[in-house]
Amino acid sequence: MHLPDPPAVILVNPQLGENIGTCARAMLNFGLTEMRIVDPRDGWPNEAAIGPASGATSVLENAKIFDTVEDATADLSFVLATTARSRDLAKPVLSPAFATAKCRELAKQGAQSGIMFGRERSGLTNDEVSRADAIVTYPVNPEFSSLNIAQAVLVFGYEWFAGAQELPSGGMPESAGELAKKEDLVMLFEHLESELIASGFLNPPAKREGMIRNLRTMFTRSELRVNEVQTFRGIIKSLVRLGALREKGEIDEV
Amino acid sequence: MHLPDPPAVILVNPQLGENIGTCARAMLNFGLTEMRIVDPRDGWPNEAAIGPASGATSVLENAKIFDTVEDATADLSFVLATTARSRDLAKPVLSPAFATAKCRELAKQGAQSGIMFGRERSGLTNDEVSRADAIVTYPVNPEFSSLNIAQAVLVFGYEWFAGAQELPSGGMPESAGELAKKEDLVMLFEHLESELIASGFLNPPAKREGMIRNLRTMFTRSELRVNEVQTFRGIIKSLVRLGALREKGEIDEV
Repeated sequence: MHLPDPPAVILVNPQLGENIGTCARAMLNFGLTEMRIVDPRDGWPNEAAIGPASGATSVLENAKIFDTVEDATADLSFVLATTARSRDLAKPVLSPAFATAKCRELAKQGAQSGIMFGRERSGLTNDEVSRADAIVTYPVNPEFSSLNIAQAVLVFGYEWFAGAQELPSGGMPESAGELAKKEDLVMLFEHLESELIASGFLNPPAKREGMIRNLRTMFTRSELRVNEVQTFRGIIKSLVRLGALREKGEIDEV
Repeated sequence: MHLPDPPAVILVNPQLGENIGTCARAMLNFGLTEMRIVDPRDGWPNEAAIGPASGATSVLENAKIFDTVEDATADLSFVLATTARSRDLAKPVLSPAFATAKCRELAKQGAQSGIMFGRERSGLTNDEVSRADAIVTYPVNPEFSSLNIAQAVLVFGYEWFAGAQELPSGGMPESAGELAKKEDLVMLFEHLESELIASGFLNPPAKREGMIRNLRTMFTRSELRVNEVQTFRGIIKSLVRLGALREKGEIDEV
């Protein structure tokens, strides 16, 4: 069986080195080789990770460290967020099985995915979740639902590896074009948001953060292609120019 | 969702109390409540199991202790053996998914199943495996294949619990709000397109039809909610107004 390149496992602000180690082990058991760590509390490298990795040291040695979630996801095309609590975010919710099917499908098109796992106690923040394309929730006993990070990584890895039957899961045809990278989306967002702030649309400022999050959620959901991001940026410029032209009386309205 | 009575998890001659504890936790996460322990090396009860169980103490308290595998499986109708090595035994080999499906099917008929997990280092003996009706093997990375007991229990439990459910497959949460009607989308499209025509963005006219189709495809894909359609229309107006304000010199750019 040949598996496509695996999704990156992104540990956001993990506290204990032991947990990073057990995650590395769980990853390698199921062929997940790329670990990314955002702002590990105890720094990096961390001796405490080595024993619990039980020999999965290649994963630890190749781990990449980032300051922010934005940096850690910049070159990815599809990002998942694991969360236990339900969130009031308009994002698709996937089971581990469907999420990994999606990752496999994208990987075959050459688009890399990643999955974020949050802090041991508090998980991911709303802001972090809002950066993801979709949420992964695990079916667990509602009366005893706390999975630790390594358990969550293990189940995701198991589904990645074991999902032998490739069922169509609503993916986009290849002809749709290359999926935009997160850094291009961030540039689009920043362009749109700065113009909307200038125009007064994102007032009052106290509500701005929530409004921006909703906007980003809406755009993220549509899995924009590279060319579509360009189109959107063109639309923004064009609408602003239209206002100027009208003001100058240079538009004949039809 | 109502799950039938779960299969018994049978730990055969486990060495470390810690592992019994992490197994209890993994079991309860996925609704496996019946632990059976055959000849635990350090006796029973074992204090060392309590911390790692992370609150799954009910599983530990209800655990039943047996001297032999024969005793531990006497009242069961269907017994599985987990094994990493291949064995020269004429027994069916099942994936965790098929094994749990079989257990569910039998449970609905009132027949209880059980699954045996072997010693930390050496697994189950050939004699123990030969007592089982079927073998369960886990799909794992052949280059890093050692699952610990709790990981093996976790994956089995996950399949037991998840296989019984209809799993989320990318639908939007209800809290996302009401899906916009097509007529509202058409009004949004017409608004945007008339402004883009006025601005010259949709030139040359010969290409206009294709460009409009692509735009509509992009928006349609994101399953916009009623409030999001309103937001987009506000954005269009706001960007055009921004152009006018700039032209009049009424914007202090930041």
